[in-house]
Amino acid sequence: MNTQHPAERILMGPGPSPVPARVLRALGAPTLGHLDPQYVAIMDEVCEMLREVFQTKNALTFPVSGTGMAGMECIATNLLEPGDEAIVCINGVFGGRMKDVMERCGATVYAVEAEWGEVIQLDQIAAALELHPKAKLVGIVHAETSTGAHQPLDGFADLVHSKGALLVVDAVTSLGGHELRVDEWGIDAIYSGTQKCLSCPPGLAPVSFGDRALAIMDSRKTKPQSWYLDVSMLRKYYTSGGGGRVYHHTAPINMTYALREALAIVLEEGLENRIERHEKMHLRLRAGLESMGLSYIPKRSLHSLNCIRIPDGADDAGTRKRLLEEYGIEIGAGLGVMAGKAWRIGLMGHGSSIRNVDLVLAALKHVLGP
Amino acid sequence: MNTQHPAERILMGPGPSPVPARVLRALGAPTLGHLDPQYVAIMDEVCEMLREVFQTKNALTFPVSGTGMAGMECIATNLLEPGDEAIVCINGVFGGRMKDVMERCGATVYAVEAEWGEVIQLDQIAAALELHPKAKLVGIVHAETSTGAHQPLDGFADLVHSKGALLVVDAVTSLGGHELRVDEWGIDAIYSGTQKCLSCPPGLAPVSFGDRALAIMDSRKTKPQSWYLDVSMLRKYYTSGGGGRVYHHTAPINMTYALREALAIVLEEGLENRIERHEKMHLRLRAGLESMGLSYIPKRSLHSLNCIRIPDGADDAGTRKRLLEEYGIEIGAGLGVMAGKAWRIGLMGHGSSIRNVDLVLAALKHVLGP
Repeated sequence: MNTQHPAERILMGPGPSPVPARVLRALGAPTLGHLDPQYVAIMDEVCEMLREVFQTKNALTFPVSGTGMAGMECIATNLLEPGDEAIVCINGVFGGRMKDVMERCGATVYAVEAEWGEVIQLDQIAAALELHPKAKLVGIVHAETSTGAHQPLDGFADLVHSKGALLVVDAVTSLGGHELRVDEWGIDAIYSGTQKCLSCPPGLAPVSFGDRALAIMDSRKTKPQSWYLDVSMLRKYYTSGGGGRVYHHTAPINMTYALREALAIVLEEGLENRIERHEKMHLRLRAGLESMGLSYIPKRSLHSLNCIRIPDGADDAGTRKRLLEEYGIEIGAGLGVMAGKAWRIGLMGHGSSIRNVDLVLAALKHVLGP
Repeated sequence: MNTQHPAERILMGPGPSPVPARVLRALGAPTLGHLDPQYVAIMDEVCEMLREVFQTKNALTFPVSGTGMAGMECIATNLLEPGDEAIVCINGVFGGRMKDVMERCGATVYAVEAEWGEVIQLDQIAAALELHPKAKLVGIVHAETSTGAHQPLDGFADLVHSKGALLVVDAVTSLGGHELRVDEWGIDAIYSGTQKCLSCPPGLAPVSFGDRALAIMDSRKTKPQSWYLDVSMLRKYYTSGGGGRVYHHTAPINMTYALREALAIVLEEGLENRIERHEKMHLRLRAGLESMGLSYIPKRSLHSLNCIRIPDGADDAGTRKRLLEEYGIEIGAGLGVMAGKAWRIGLMGHGSSIRNVDLVLAALKHVLGP
């Protein structure tokens, strides 16, 4: 197989999403040193833009040097200590992963579960907090990439805070494509990825920590088990003033350029407009799919990811292969218990466009059809 | 400050090193999905090229999705369990970090120390192994980036293996620039970074695990504390056959293109030629610096990094600032106990060239000069 020249795919799976030419070009800018004053200025700009996109004033907002799961692990390793208790909501693969990650931090993790495709109800959390009053945090996935379910978060922070716990949110597939108001919604710690609705290549994980999370980190009795993700050191690099930067590790310089450009595109479009576009394109795709007799798995679907049932008699892998080979379109297979039962069609960031919607509908009609 | 257009620096610090135009261009190739057959083929090619550069047949050789320190942490978290004992050699910042990282894995770590700038002697390790017969591994830094010391490794594996321990090597600043024979030298686990002698931007950490390390991982009683770096899962993605790939996390796709191109350049030049070039350029720089009255801190200097004493009366920060502003040359400050006492001049990968050597000598003469 030709490995020299990556093909020009139309990425309509669960991520990565299509990367605009501007962002690809930004990647190739000359590499600066990680302590170069210009690079520090670029990083500051990225952190400021991330605050806008997260809709937060949190000083401690920065991109972790790894992909989305490194963001999840960063939050877990910094907020939890051995012997802690936590509650994690599980209605798909990523809630399950969050439990696993937090247990590896030495915490006892209680699961609040819903069927895959369903969302978690506020009273389930209330009951769990009643049962486990020592829980230090409640972790929940805003956009469950394995099922396409869109988790409402209204009232969650008030409830969780009333019990003295933190609200931790996975926003990997929602940041930049769905309404998400970190400060207004009272989210204490949140992580995302660059390769979904921000339409940047994978390689960085934006995170943000609020004051309650900072207080928890400042009162730790033990070091976080990860040195690489230790926020007590990272914050000396990411949030101190120009002169006071303390070297921790060498950040992925060129990826930072790409993220800067991707965030600039988000802010040029305007967050509201972008969120509205994601909704419109989702509705257009949904109408088209339903008119073909296809149906959605989650009741409350994400706009950024459309998880549909594979129709009876259709060949799962064969259909995806034809889309890839004939159209250069990537859609996603089902993950976990959804394997063989679902397709996942992403409309994320740059990829959430009328041309992609109409094309994937035409392609599906052709490949599935009559 | 202009953040749109990163300046064209000549990177002669402790890394990142100058990135060839070919590699910067490769970064900007279209983003593929991480399960796309073409991407899987590219990743396989990268792993095969890494085996050549590491001079190993180890099947489990791949780039960790993080910068160099993530490589260190990957090895620590997979080889060590709470209650284990380990020996770590410390003669600079990075040995100290290795101890910290391993302690966070729950291990008791015994230090074998040498003065900064000196190297570790074989009989020190022998004595430590005598004293701590349960040590599961001995960790040592091949190229100590904080002091420029070049650690010989002859006989180390035989000694360590005779006591039933593993030899773990930090090769962040040596891979692709110094002689380094993983199989012949009996190294059991090794990590590096992309942004040093491979001249790729930072963002990936090549690692390799031999059979002894695999056996240790296969017999673990507990899960590695890091999910993100758990090799038992990563190997299902990186080393299974084409059809059997199991999704773990979304790898940094575009960084993988860059690493592929950077490794292609290494192999086109030939590893032997490249290592010889690094030696020649080091000797040329050394002769020039010494003729100016400057002196090296380590007795056995790396070829890739030249750590010199700041001459009496010279202005540390002011000199580096003038080099950066007038020449666009980045050299490194001293790190740790060397702060204010040392400059670090990198001649790594693409940056190890006669034009860079002669230019930095001319620039230093001008800036320091009479």
